[in-house]
Amino acid sequence: MPLLNEPRILILGTGLIGSSIGLALRAVPGFNGRVSGWDPDATELATALRLGALDDALPSREAVLTLGLADIYVLASPVLPILDWMHLLAPVLGPNQLVTDVGSTKLIVAKLAATLFNGPGRAHCLPGHPMAGKESGGAALADPALFRGAAWLFTPAPSQLPEPPASHPLADQWRTWVTAFGAEVHDLDAVRHDEICAWVSHLPQFLSTALTALLADTFAADPAGRAALDVIGGRALREHTRLGASPYTMWRDIALTNTEPIAATLLALEGSLAHLRENLRTPELREEFRHANAFRAPAPAPPR
Amino acid sequence: MPLLNEPRILILGTGLIGSSIGLALRAVPGFNGRVSGWDPDATELATALRLGALDDALPSREAVLTLGLADIYVLASPVLPILDWMHLLAPVLGPNQLVTDVGSTKLIVAKLAATLFNGPGRAHCLPGHPMAGKESGGAALADPALFRGAAWLFTPAPSQLPEPPASHPLADQWRTWVTAFGAEVHDLDAVRHDEICAWVSHLPQFLSTALTALLADTFAADPAGRAALDVIGGRALREHTRLGASPYTMWRDIALTNTEPIAATLLALEGSLAHLRENLRTPELREEFRHANAFRAPAPAPPR
Repeated sequence: MPLLNEPRILILGTGLIGSSIGLALRAVPGFNGRVSGWDPDATELATALRLGALDDALPSREAVLTLGLADIYVLASPVLPILDWMHLLAPVLGPNQLVTDVGSTKLIVAKLAATLFNGPGRAHCLPGHPMAGKESGGAALADPALFRGAAWLFTPAPSQLPEPPASHPLADQWRTWVTAFGAEVHDLDAVRHDEICAWVSHLPQFLSTALTALLADTFAADPAGRAALDVIGGRALREHTRLGASPYTMWRDIALTNTEPIAATLLALEGSLAHLRENLRTPELREEFRHANAFRAPAPAPPR
Repeated sequence: MPLLNEPRILILGTGLIGSSIGLALRAVPGFNGRVSGWDPDATELATALRLGALDDALPSREAVLTLGLADIYVLASPVLPILDWMHLLAPVLGPNQLVTDVGSTKLIVAKLAATLFNGPGRAHCLPGHPMAGKESGGAALADPALFRGAAWLFTPAPSQLPEPPASHPLADQWRTWVTAFGAEVHDLDAVRHDEICAWVSHLPQFLSTALTALLADTFAADPAGRAALDVIGGRALREHTRLGASPYTMWRDIALTNTEPIAATLLALEGSLAHLRENLRTPELREEFRHANAFRAPAPAPPR
């Protein structure tokens, strides 16, 4: 299939990530496609349109399923609605169409892609995950530079072994655009993705939420203490609680679709904290600092 | 006692904080004093001198105890050496001299100050704690602007009740200079200080150390995973592990002198993490996010 001259992109979910993709696409030198969008929140959709992230907005959820509407469908919602869209789109799309997503967990998406897409006569599905975001969402914060320097992970199949499905011209086109956004593309096994992201992204989020909720409880009945906290509080506490502002809806879907890896990292951290707590006055504390210092130090040069 | 025309300051411990104080003092408009220093590490002392944090360096630990050497003694070492210096200085100083410190825990310092200083015929002691620092220490990183916008806490007595000791002209002078550094001065009960700092400063540090040491252990035998972690890792993990680089020696003294408040915050965080882990798939997760979101939100305007 030759590359399209005027590709039609449809972004489903025009919040921070979806709108930033729209802005980034339209800023790619030579991009001559048309970007449409839809969002269940009419305000988000209107904001995306107003900011120039979209050429036009679809009038309804039903309109999304019009035959031949777009060449590339970008699912940019939380994970559960992504799965819903995959179920809805698979029957109405054909082999000259691409579905890609930006969901934070990938095994469940890659499994569904293997079931509903990527077969003879079916549309192609390339699960993806840009490692970018802000602690607050919404189209109003959209930024075409959001992905610059960030990793953009693809998990073409649940497992890379024996080998992922053959690629697709539209998938190659999408990868080219993502690279043009300034992102660094990496392909990863979906299981590995979910395990690594549990450490890199999900644990930091749930840790921030747990710590921030704990502070809220601890100082709820102590306004003077809360005031002192605000006066004294420095960078360290700010960093650890920044993600306390993150929205529940997105993270509920992540908790539901990556429960076991997340629970494993939380349990491990509880153990590490208890170990340190039990050793505040013993020489083992030195060992913990030594391990942590070494991990944070620059990697040694590889042996020659 | 009239204010001195050419006050002599002696900074004991010329690492990051001590050297930054030297630089900040010498940058105060109209400051006409003389800043001397000593450090057990000859390299740190030489660096402080080279950077202009000091007018001169003392030749030995013994020289510090020369009678009438300085008007203001600034103890800028970890907490245990601060306590040592207090024991050594109390017998050789008199009522026209001030001792102040920058130690991270204050109850133990304030108690010793009440015992060894602040009585008839004795030197004055004003325990202090600038809420500033970096994850790496050392005179080489010294910065006269380090305290700008930071809180600088004083705990004049173990408890503010019934009332702290009468102030002292040199203590007033020191507060004036600290304000000139750009810091915001607050007086606090020492017990309260140690409890609040356990939340604001000590818990974030020990959490970072525990998490960073855990990552080191988890990925020690998995270089590919470690590489993926580095590729994918974004701001969230960086923030949570930044303090993993902090030095053991300083934090050992904090762990030893504020053990119970720190252990209490760690235990509470373990409980909060376990609660969240057990509710990854229940509606209680929404409540945790709601609490955290509310705490991070701007405080509501006070009722009129």
